[in-house]
Amino acid sequence: MDAAEFRRRGKEMVDLIADYLENIEQRPVYPDVEPGYLRSLIPEEAPEEPDTYEDVVKDIERVIMPGVTHWHSPYFYAYFPTANSFPAMLADMLSGAIGCIGFSWAASPACTELETVMMDWLGKMLKLPEDFIAGTHGQGGGVIQGTASEATLVALLAARSRAVRMILASDPQRPETGITSKLVAYSSDQAHCSVERAGMIAGVRMKKIPTEQSDKYAVQGETLRRMIQEDKAAGLIPFYVRTEHTHPLLQYSGNAEKIWMHIDAAYAGSSFICPEFRPLLNGIEFADSFNFNPHKWLLVNFDCSTMWVRKRSDLIGAFKMDPLYLKHDHQESGRYFYTDNSLFRSLKMWFVFRMYGLKGLQDYIRKHVELAKEFESLVRADQRFEISADVVLGLVCFRLKGSNEVNETLLKRINNGRKIHLVPCQLSGQFVLRFAVCARTTESRHIREAWRLITQLAEEVMQELPH
Amino acid sequence: MDAAEFRRRGKEMVDLIADYLENIEQRPVYPDVEPGYLRSLIPEEAPEEPDTYEDVVKDIERVIMPGVTHWHSPYFYAYFPTANSFPAMLADMLSGAIGCIGFSWAASPACTELETVMMDWLGKMLKLPEDFIAGTHGQGGGVIQGTASEATLVALLAARSRAVRMILASDPQRPETGITSKLVAYSSDQAHCSVERAGMIAGVRMKKIPTEQSDKYAVQGETLRRMIQEDKAAGLIPFYVRTEHTHPLLQYSGNAEKIWMHIDAAYAGSSFICPEFRPLLNGIEFADSFNFNPHKWLLVNFDCSTMWVRKRSDLIGAFKMDPLYLKHDHQESGRYFYTDNSLFRSLKMWFVFRMYGLKGLQDYIRKHVELAKEFESLVRADQRFEISADVVLGLVCFRLKGSNEVNETLLKRINNGRKIHLVPCQLSGQFVLRFAVCARTTESRHIREAWRLITQLAEEVMQELPH
Repeated sequence: MDAAEFRRRGKEMVDLIADYLENIEQRPVYPDVEPGYLRSLIPEEAPEEPDTYEDVVKDIERVIMPGVTHWHSPYFYAYFPTANSFPAMLADMLSGAIGCIGFSWAASPACTELETVMMDWLGKMLKLPEDFIAGTHGQGGGVIQGTASEATLVALLAARSRAVRMILASDPQRPETGITSKLVAYSSDQAHCSVERAGMIAGVRMKKIPTEQSDKYAVQGETLRRMIQEDKAAGLIPFYVRTEHTHPLLQYSGNAEKIWMHIDAAYAGSSFICPEFRPLLNGIEFADSFNFNPHKWLLVNFDCSTMWVRKRSDLIGAFKMDPLYLKHDHQESGRYFYTDNSLFRSLKMWFVFRMYGLKGLQDYIRKHVELAKEFESLVRADQRFEISADVVLGLVCFRLKGSNEVNETLLKRINNGRKIHLVPCQLSGQFVLRFAVCARTTESRHIREAWRLITQLAEEVMQELPH
Repeated sequence: MDAAEFRRRGKEMVDLIADYLENIEQRPVYPDVEPGYLRSLIPEEAPEEPDTYEDVVKDIERVIMPGVTHWHSPYFYAYFPTANSFPAMLADMLSGAIGCIGFSWAASPACTELETVMMDWLGKMLKLPEDFIAGTHGQGGGVIQGTASEATLVALLAARSRAVRMILASDPQRPETGITSKLVAYSSDQAHCSVERAGMIAGVRMKKIPTEQSDKYAVQGETLRRMIQEDKAAGLIPFYVRTEHTHPLLQYSGNAEKIWMHIDAAYAGSSFICPEFRPLLNGIEFADSFNFNPHKWLLVNFDCSTMWVRKRSDLIGAFKMDPLYLKHDHQESGRYFYTDNSLFRSLKMWFVFRMYGLKGLQDYIRKHVELAKEFESLVRADQRFEISADVVLGLVCFRLKGSNEVNETLLKRINNGRKIHLVPCQLSGQFVLRFAVCARTTESRHIREAWRLITQLAEEVMQELPH
């Protein structure tokens, strides 16, 4: 395919995409296929001679679409939102064409530099403390990671490296493996499974901080303080805390042990661009690193997980490698982050921030929060249901009053209907349904339709099952 | 921006991309900017109100392009190729629109399934042993990673987990930290810096296997055997070998210690689809995992690093986490890989394999190898130069006979000219220029023009410097 054919096929693809997104709500949101469905629909081997482009395009509807869970359907309420916007898609097209690998400043200066400046733009939108802004002379700054899981791991590794350095500085004879085996990291018992995995990868103890329903499942500074004291008394070395909330940091300010504090607001972070939600980030001034995912709720397509650190040198120092083939005339260690894996991901931040403007982005967040509140009201108005956790942003956790079994059955019916899609979670041993406002195009009418379906199925389930 | 505007802007972007790639060789391949150039060209904060799309597009030429290193210019000979093809870009557009996150089968079955089948297609193109093909009943199979560095780390972590499991099975009382501190991994002294970093991340000893110029810098099975014996005698536990070449495995077959053998053919791997280069992979039948980057030399845009393992359960077991919110009705552990970070990356493999066909891809590899041979002939015909390593595929390592200084000066002149772009490497203490055939559009005339420039600058340098 040459450039002339790409001009034609690319324009057809633009229309195909626009058609797909304009008509997405007519598709079943959750696919009706069995594992292995796809293999039988295509050949067992790649063709020797080229296929025609027409055949490839036909196969999108024949092979792919029947097996797609449509994350951008306004009837998708599962997991968390993943971003999808036209400006981001345009930027991604350009990024693919430039196709540079930004593993050093020289490998494509615009790539490294736009990322640094966009991270400053976004940091200012969130009103992050000045320490996290790179500017022209700052020690801190931001870097794009692939996922919040990756950011958790990167922060953990940087923290491990800093802890080992600090201990060796005061006790140079101590063997390094002896230090690592004593290190202990902490994370909420509500944390995503990737946190446990980060501990496994780094080979360090990861302890869960117990949380209580009465505290809204948020880590309490006092609980953390007690665990740290006990572990220190037992000869361990606390070195890293990862939480979703900043308020334990307020209660733990001081931090004489120099424990690395990492805040992961993967989903909630986008809302902090609104003044009314920014208080959720109070305490960030005591953190070493902060991360959230614009690719969740800020209209920047996957992947774009933004991470800031107070000291860039803590990250660079933990991973630095300087082979000859990456050296260049403008080698200024410490000025820019080393990024191993960078496409031109900042382009989509730039397009989205400019095409929406801060106000447009704030409006978008507020609309989703309102839709969640609307769903919450519908649940609260129905005596058969209960709300299982405070509705703060775009997520409503709810359940039928009654057994886990009845709720499991209800969820199964909902998803088998394929009209709307939800996933469950567990809160204090209860099976709970999660209703997350996800798609850019979700409107009040979709919420009301979803509720109509849920109550209709609940009716059926309650008639069938004893309660 | 709504779908109607996206139809218009998307088509304009298709033309912008086609224009950029059709005229890319008229741009200086290496940018003439100083660090910090970009910050002064754009505002310090995101706009409150939206900018116009016209302004955003104007800024591509004003802000971005002056700082881009043009990896797809036919005058780009630095690092390694990174793939860029029209079919891959079309697939990426579709992938962005579907925008699903494939972290489980249910999160988008088509995403998981197409990846599995495309990895089989590619494995068959490479004539991988049957053990690495998933098929409908295989134990092995492939998964897409972001980079070869990531694959190296994933294999290392899976190997660590397997080693610890095996030792605990025979000695259940042994403390796990006591095992980890004895583990030792091996990699060539020629390996990419990311291998050392993988060892740092996993917290295990990583030893470099010395190589010799007389062995073409390839790891020798006998050297490896000796190191492993010595380490075992010293009470260490050898558990992982990562090499770029398979022939040490031929010499090391048997592997009574069950050491995990990982082959990383990041660049060379693409060539194995040609029967004449496939012998470079002989010995793969003794490997546990194999990885290469179609995003380098197989026309599949970044990122697409393909990794196969003999036993899927070794990977799944090392990382498995099963929270409730990822469970689904078709939970069949072991059937599919867990992928944390998956866009619909297999779509671009599918588009590329079908639009080129195996023959088209083979032609593409062969053309690049021929261009490298052409450059090699030009170097060999000039008495002032020497070839520094065998030219096997698309990379020519060469230098002026003489001091490192004269070669460093030559390279600086070349890159300051901005007409062509090369980076250096070090071989046995010598400063060597690397000439890598990279762009899809490179032709014989570009190679000859590059050589004309190099010899002209060499002439100047040799007149100025004593030699």
